[in-house]
Amino acid sequence: MSERFTPTPEDRFTFGLWTVGWRGNDPFGEATRPALDPVESVERLAALGAHGVTFHDDDLIPFGSTETERAAIVKRFRAALDATGMKVPMATTNLFTHPVFKDGGFTANDRDVRRYALRKTIRNIDLAVELGAKTYVAWGGREGAESGGAKDVRDALDRMKEAFDLLGDYVTEQGYDLRFAIEPKPNEPRGDILLPTIGHALAFIERLERPDMFGVNPETGHEQMAGLNFPHGIAQALWSGKLFHLDLNGQSGIKYDQDMRFGAGDLRQAFWLVDLLESAGYAGSRHFDFKPARTDGFDGVWESAKNCMRNYLILQERSAAFRADSEVQEALRASRLDQLAQPTAADGLSALLADRASFEDFDVAEAAGRSMAFERLDQLAMDHLLGVR
Amino acid sequence: MSERFTPTPEDRFTFGLWTVGWRGNDPFGEATRPALDPVESVERLAALGAHGVTFHDDDLIPFGSTETERAAIVKRFRAALDATGMKVPMATTNLFTHPVFKDGGFTANDRDVRRYALRKTIRNIDLAVELGAKTYVAWGGREGAESGGAKDVRDALDRMKEAFDLLGDYVTEQGYDLRFAIEPKPNEPRGDILLPTIGHALAFIERLERPDMFGVNPETGHEQMAGLNFPHGIAQALWSGKLFHLDLNGQSGIKYDQDMRFGAGDLRQAFWLVDLLESAGYAGSRHFDFKPARTDGFDGVWESAKNCMRNYLILQERSAAFRADSEVQEALRASRLDQLAQPTAADGLSALLADRASFEDFDVAEAAGRSMAFERLDQLAMDHLLGVR
Amino acid sequence: MSERFTPTPEDRFTFGLWTVGWRGNDPFGEATRPALDPVESVERLAALGAHGVTFHDDDLIPFGSTETERAAIVKRFRAALDATGMKVPMATTNLFTHPVFKDGGFTANDRDVRRYALRKTIRNIDLAVELGAKTYVAWGGREGAESGGAKDVRDALDRMKEAFDLLGDYVTEQGYDLRFAIEPKPNEPRGDILLPTIGHALAFIERLERPDMFGVNPETGHEQMAGLNFPHGIAQALWSGKLFHLDLNGQSGIKYDQDMRFGAGDLRQAFWLVDLLESAGYAGSRHFDFKPARTDGFDGVWESAKNCMRNYLILQERSAAFRADSEVQEALRASRLDQLAQPTAADGLSALLADRASFEDFDVAEAAGRSMAFERLDQLAMDHLLGVR
Amino acid sequence: MSERFTPTPEDRFTFGLWTVGWRGNDPFGEATRPALDPVESVERLAALGAHGVTFHDDDLIPFGSTETERAAIVKRFRAALDATGMKVPMATTNLFTHPVFKDGGFTANDRDVRRYALRKTIRNIDLAVELGAKTYVAWGGREGAESGGAKDVRDALDRMKEAFDLLGDYVTEQGYDLRFAIEPKPNEPRGDILLPTIGHALAFIERLERPDMFGVNPETGHEQMAGLNFPHGIAQALWSGKLFHLDLNGQSGIKYDQDMRFGAGDLRQAFWLVDLLESAGYAGSRHFDFKPARTDGFDGVWESAKNCMRNYLILQERSAAFRADSEVQEALRASRLDQLAQPTAADGLSALLADRASFEDFDVAEAAGRSMAFERLDQLAMDHLLGVR
Repeated sequence: MSERFTPTPEDRFTFGLWTVGWRGNDPFGEATRPALDPVESVERLAALGAHGVTFHDDDLIPFGSTETERAAIVKRFRAALDATGMKVPMATTNLFTHPVFKDGGFTANDRDVRRYALRKTIRNIDLAVELGAKTYVAWGGREGAESGGAKDVRDALDRMKEAFDLLGDYVTEQGYDLRFAIEPKPNEPRGDILLPTIGHALAFIERLERPDMFGVNPETGHEQMAGLNFPHGIAQALWSGKLFHLDLNGQSGIKYDQDMRFGAGDLRQAFWLVDLLESAGYAGSRHFDFKPARTDGFDGVWESAKNCMRNYLILQERSAAFRADSEVQEALRASRLDQLAQPTAADGLSALLADRASFEDFDVAEAAGRSMAFERLDQLAMDHLLGVR
Repeated sequence: MSERFTPTPEDRFTFGLWTVGWRGNDPFGEATRPALDPVESVERLAALGAHGVTFHDDDLIPFGSTETERAAIVKRFRAALDATGMKVPMATTNLFTHPVFKDGGFTANDRDVRRYALRKTIRNIDLAVELGAKTYVAWGGREGAESGGAKDVRDALDRMKEAFDLLGDYVTEQGYDLRFAIEPKPNEPRGDILLPTIGHALAFIERLERPDMFGVNPETGHEQMAGLNFPHGIAQALWSGKLFHLDLNGQSGIKYDQDMRFGAGDLRQAFWLVDLLESAGYAGSRHFDFKPARTDGFDGVWESAKNCMRNYLILQERSAAFRADSEVQEALRASRLDQLAQPTAADGLSALLADRASFEDFDVAEAAGRSMAFERLDQLAMDHLLGVR
Repeated sequence: MSERFTPTPEDRFTFGLWTVGWRGNDPFGEATRPALDPVESVERLAALGAHGVTFHDDDLIPFGSTETERAAIVKRFRAALDATGMKVPMATTNLFTHPVFKDGGFTANDRDVRRYALRKTIRNIDLAVELGAKTYVAWGGREGAESGGAKDVRDALDRMKEAFDLLGDYVTEQGYDLRFAIEPKPNEPRGDILLPTIGHALAFIERLERPDMFGVNPETGHEQMAGLNFPHGIAQALWSGKLFHLDLNGQSGIKYDQDMRFGAGDLRQAFWLVDLLESAGYAGSRHFDFKPARTDGFDGVWESAKNCMRNYLILQERSAAFRADSEVQEALRASRLDQLAQPTAADGLSALLADRASFEDFDVAEAAGRSMAFERLDQLAMDHLLGVR
Repeated sequence: MSERFTPTPEDRFTFGLWTVGWRGNDPFGEATRPALDPVESVERLAALGAHGVTFHDDDLIPFGSTETERAAIVKRFRAALDATGMKVPMATTNLFTHPVFKDGGFTANDRDVRRYALRKTIRNIDLAVELGAKTYVAWGGREGAESGGAKDVRDALDRMKEAFDLLGDYVTEQGYDLRFAIEPKPNEPRGDILLPTIGHALAFIERLERPDMFGVNPETGHEQMAGLNFPHGIAQALWSGKLFHLDLNGQSGIKYDQDMRFGAGDLRQAFWLVDLLESAGYAGSRHFDFKPARTDGFDGVWESAKNCMRNYLILQERSAAFRADSEVQEALRASRLDQLAQPTAADGLSALLADRASFEDFDVAEAAGRSMAFERLDQLAMDHLLGVR
C-alpha cells in the first residue's frame, strides 16, 4: 500500500528549508524544537523522495554571518545537494524577520530601508542563480499597514513597481535565466498587506517594465484566509500564463495563517487543485510551504513532510480515476461542460445580432427549466475522492 | 447644522433605481414594501440633492414587457429626468434574477444562455447610451459555481473574455462614448464567483482585446466580504488608472452581502475611502448601491438615501480638516510618508549597487530602532473622524 | 457498491419538507423550481430509505389557510405518513417569512407581534404533538438587529426567556411529551442574531424556568459561518446533555448560509462529526437541513437528498474502520488520549498540593520535549477518510 | 480640549503589564523593542491616569526565577504600587508561552502537564490575593487542537471542569475573596480553542461545582475574530450576571488576533459597547488588553496606552449625549424600544390563549406594514458618534 503513494524526484516535490526547520515559535509561545541543520534537511527530504529544497537567504546563512562563514555554509550545502541529487529550483529573500523590516522592505516608508531590502535581495539572487534556481519568489509580508494614514498605497505601489523593475534590470544585465514569482497574502503579519490576492498580484505585474519576467507564487492558505477558492485563483493564474510557482499547504478557513501540511484543511479544494494542476499539465515544482505541528517533535516533522507528498499522490490518483470514469464524462456532458468549452459566438458579432434564435425567438422559459445536473456531478467527484467507486 | 451636510448635484451623488426600490425580499423572507415607481424615485432623489440615477434594464422595464410598453416607460422616465435635471451616468444589465441565468450569463455552461445574455446586454447598452450614460457596469453575479466540477474556470474565463470583447466590438462599431466597469464580488449568490476581487478584475481586463475600454466598479461590501481593505483596493484601482465607477455602501465584516447605507458598517474604512477619493481628485459619480433596511417603511428608504449622502459629506469635511492640520502634517513626516513618495533609487541600479551605505555600511540596528510613530498619526485621524480636534 | 451505502429507516435519517421543497429563490434570483407537494416529498423520501420528515407550520399548511383547508391538508398528509411508515420526529414554526416578522418573533419590538408569534407557535405545537413529534425546534432567525440602537439585547433576552417559559408552561399544562431544541445562528437574515452559537444557546437555556425541557438544535453551516469547529460545538452540547436534535448540511467557510447537501463543504469536519455522533451513541434523528442546488431540476433534488444519506453512511463506515484499526489505537496512546480520559487529580487538592513531583520537582524541560505525535494520528485519520488503508 | 478626555483613577482604567511591555515579536518577526521594567510601567501608567495594572505570573516574575529573586521582585513591585497608588484588581496565569504547554494546560493530554498547570496557577493565585486582586482571569489559549483526533473534546471538558472545580476548592479553603473570569477565544494559537466564545464559556460555567464563583472575561477582538457582535455578547454576559471582567481592544474583522488599541478597528461596536457598559452601570475595571504597534518605539507604547483611555472617554461623552437627546428618545419610542422593555404576556398564558386579538383577530397585514424606523435611529447614533449634533 505505502508503495502506491511513495514519491520519486520525478514528482517534483520540493520543500522550503524553513518548513521542516520551523522551530515552533508562535505569537503566544516559544520555540518547541531545536534548530535543524539545513544539510540534515536536504538529506532527509532526499531520502523521502523529494526533488529539491528552497530557501530564504537567512534560512541557509544566518543573518549577520561573515563572508567566510557564508562561503563555508554554501560549500557544505552544495556538497549535500550534490551528494543527494537534490535541486534548488527556487529561492527567496527574508524581508520580514529582522526588526529593520518592521514597516516593510520594498515599500518601507524609510528610503534607506528600501535600499537595503533591494541590496539584500540582489545578493541572494546571485546565490540562487549560483545554486541553479530558475525562479525567485518575492513575498512582501510586511508591505502593508495597520492604520489608514501609515501608508499611501499609491506611493507604495510606485515603490513596489520601482523595486521589481530594478530587480528585472539586474537579472537582465547579469544575463540570469531567472523569473520572479510574487506571492500574495491578505494580512498577517500586517493588518492589511499590499497585493492581497492572486488577482491583485496579477494586475500589478501588468504595470511593470518587464511583465513577462514576472508571475505569481500563490499559497493555498493565503487565498483561503480571504475566503477565496484556491483552485479558482490558480485557474486564473494559469489562464493568464502566470503560474510560475506555487505553495501547497493546508488551512482551515478564515483565521490566522495555519500552514498545515498539504491535505489538511479544505480537502475538497485540495482535490480540485490537484485535478486542475494535473489536467493543465502544470510542469513546475509541487512546492510545500507548511509548518509541522509545534506540538510534535522531529517525528512529526518528517511524518508531515512525507504526508504532504503522500496526500498529493493520493489525490492525483483519485483525480485520474475521476477523469477516466465514463459516467463522469457523461455527467460532464449532462452539465454542458462541453458547451462551455465552445465559443459563444464563433460566427462573430453581426451573426449574433442577426440570430433571432438568440434573443427574439429564444424560449427563455424552456432554457430556465433545464437542469444543470450539478448535484450528480459533484457526488461523482465525492465518490472518487472518498474512493467508493 | 443640517445645511452643512446637505448635498447638491455638484457633489455627483447617484443611486441605483434598485436601491430605494428594493422591496425587502431576502433568502428567508418576502417583500416588506410595495414596488416603487421609478419616476417617483427620480423625483424624490432629485429633491434630496442627488445628481442622478442608474438602473438595470429590468429595474426600469419589467422583464417581458412588449415594445410598446417599453417605449412608454422610457418616454415617461425621460420626462422625469428632464423635469428634475437628473442624469443617468451609468446603466447595467440584470443577468441574475430570472431563472434562465441560474448558471450565469456570459459564462453559463449553456451556449444559448450565453448568447441570450449578450443580446440582453447589448439591448440595454443602446438604451443606456440613449439616456446619456458614459459608463456601463457589468456585475457577473452568477458567473461562478458551488462545486468544483461544475465550471472549468479556464474555459469560463475564455467565455468571459469573448463576451467583453464582443461588447467592445459593439460599442466601437456603434461609435458609442461608453466605457465598461466590471464589478467584482467573491461569493453570493454563487458559492464562488469568478473575478472575486478588484485585483482579479483588474488582471482579467489586461487580457481583453481593448483593455483601455474596461475598468472596475468596486463595491465597498464586496471587498469587505473577503476581509479586504476597501480603500487599499480602490487605491490599486486608481493607481492602475482603472477606477471607472464605484459602489458605496456599508458592510459589517465577512458575512452575507448587507448593502447597508454608506457610513454604516466599517466607519474607519469609510473615512479613509473618502480621504482617498478626495485626495486623488476622483471625478466620477459617488454612486450608492445599498438596500434600505427591510424593517422600515418608505420613511426609512428616503431617510437612508439622504444619510448616504450626509455621511459622505461629513467624512469629506473631516478628511479635509485632517489634511489641513499642521500637527497631522508633522506627524506624517514623523512617519516618513514624505520619504515613501520619493524614489528608492532615482540614481539607478548601478548607483545603488555601488552605494556602500545602502548595504555594506548600513547601520541595521539603528534603522531597526527608529519609531515609525504610527500610533500618534492614527490617533490624530481618529480625533478628526470623531470631531474632537 | 451502491448497496453498501443505501439507507434504511433504522438509520434515522430525516428531512425537512422545506429542504427538498425549496424552490430556489435567493437574494438575487427568483424561484427556479415549482412548488413540491408535501405528500410527494414523503413518498419519495420514504422510497429513498428515510425515516421521516419534519416541517414548519407554513411548509405544510400555507399561511392564511382556512380551518377547513387545514384539516384537509393534515388528513392527506397523515395518510401519506401512514402509507409509507414515515415518522414526524420534529416540527417547528416559521417566524421569519411573513413581513410581520421583519423585526423578529419572540423578541420583536412590537408587543403584539410577539404575542402573535407565541400563538402561532403554540398552534403548531398542537399539530406537532398530534403527528407524533417529540422535539420542537425553535430557530429565531429574525431575533436580532442590524444597528446598535434597534435592539436592547438585555430586554430582548428577557422577552426570549419569557417566550420559552410560556411555551414550557403550555407543554407542561397540556401534558405533552415534547422537548424544545433551540437553533443558533450568527447572522443572516439579520445582521446579528441573538443566541448566535451553540454556546450562547446552551448558556441561555440555563436561565429558563424549566432548563431540562430545553436543548439545542445545532446546524453544521451555522456554526461554520462563525468559523467555529462544528464537531467541537456538538461535543460541548453532548457534554452538557443538551444535544436534542441536529441539522446536518454543508458549508464552505464564512459566508452566506449555503445549506449544501451533507458531505459538501468541510469534509474533514463531516468525518469527525460522524465519528463523534457514532462514538457517543447519539440516538436521535440524523436530520438534514439543506437546499438542493437551484441550478438543478428535481433530478438534483432527489439526487442530493439520496447523497446526504449516502455520505453519512460512507463516513460512518470510515469512522468505524478508523476506530477499529490497531495502529490508530496505538497512535491514540502515543498522543496520550488515554491520559486525557483520566482525572488530573483523582486524589484531590491536598494530594496535588503535597505532590512535589507535580511542581517543585517537575522536569519541565523533559515534559516540554515530548512529542505529541499528532501529525501521525491525523494522517491515519486522513488515510481512513480517503479509504487508502 | 485634551483635558476633556484625560482620565483619572476613578475611571477605573487598567492595563496588563504584558500590553505596554509587549516587545513586538510576531509569527514572522523578532522583537522590535527592549524589555520594559514592570515598575516603569506602573509609574508611567499612573502618570497617565490609570487606576491599576494586571499581570500574568511570568510578566512580573520571569519563568524559572528563584524564590529569592521572586521575593525581591514582588517587594519592589509592591513598593511601586504603594508609591503610585496603583491597584492590582486582577491577575492571571501564563499557561501558553513555555513549550511545556504546547498542548494546553488544564486540558493537555499529558496528565502531569495538567497537574503542573494547576500548581502554577495556584501559586499565582496566592500572589494575586496578596496584591489585592479580586478577580482571577483564566485564558486557556492552548486548550484546543488543530486536528480532530488530537483531542477528545468531551474528555477535555471533563478535565477543564475538574481544574476549575479544584481551583474553586482552593480559593474556598483559603478563604480568599476572589472570583474567576474565564476568557474565551475561538482560535490562535490553536486551530480551534475550547470555549471559543462568550456563550460557550457561560454555558460551561453552569456545569461547575461552584458556578457563582465563575464568570467571563470577554475580549473585544476575540469575539470579533468569530465575526460576532461584541456588544451583543457583553449584553448576554451582563444579562447572565457573569460579566466579571473584560478586555478592551481593537480588531479589524476576522483574521489573526490584532490587539490594537481600544477605538481602533470597529468603531461603531466600540461606541455601542461603551453605551452598554455605561447604561448598565458596569462597575468593574475598564481593562485594556492590547499590543502597541510593533512598528513604533516607546513613544508609540505610551501614546497608544493614553489613547485607549482617551477613546473610551470620548465615546462615553458621545453615548451620554445620545441618551440625553430628546430626538433620540422620541426615535427610540418610534422604534418601540419601550415596548420591548414590557412583558409580552404579563397576564400569563391563559390570558394570552384567550386573547383573540393576539391571533384570531390580529391584523397581520397592518402589523407587517408598520415601519420600525431603524434607519433614522441609527443615523442619530451616527451623528452623535461623529459629533455633528
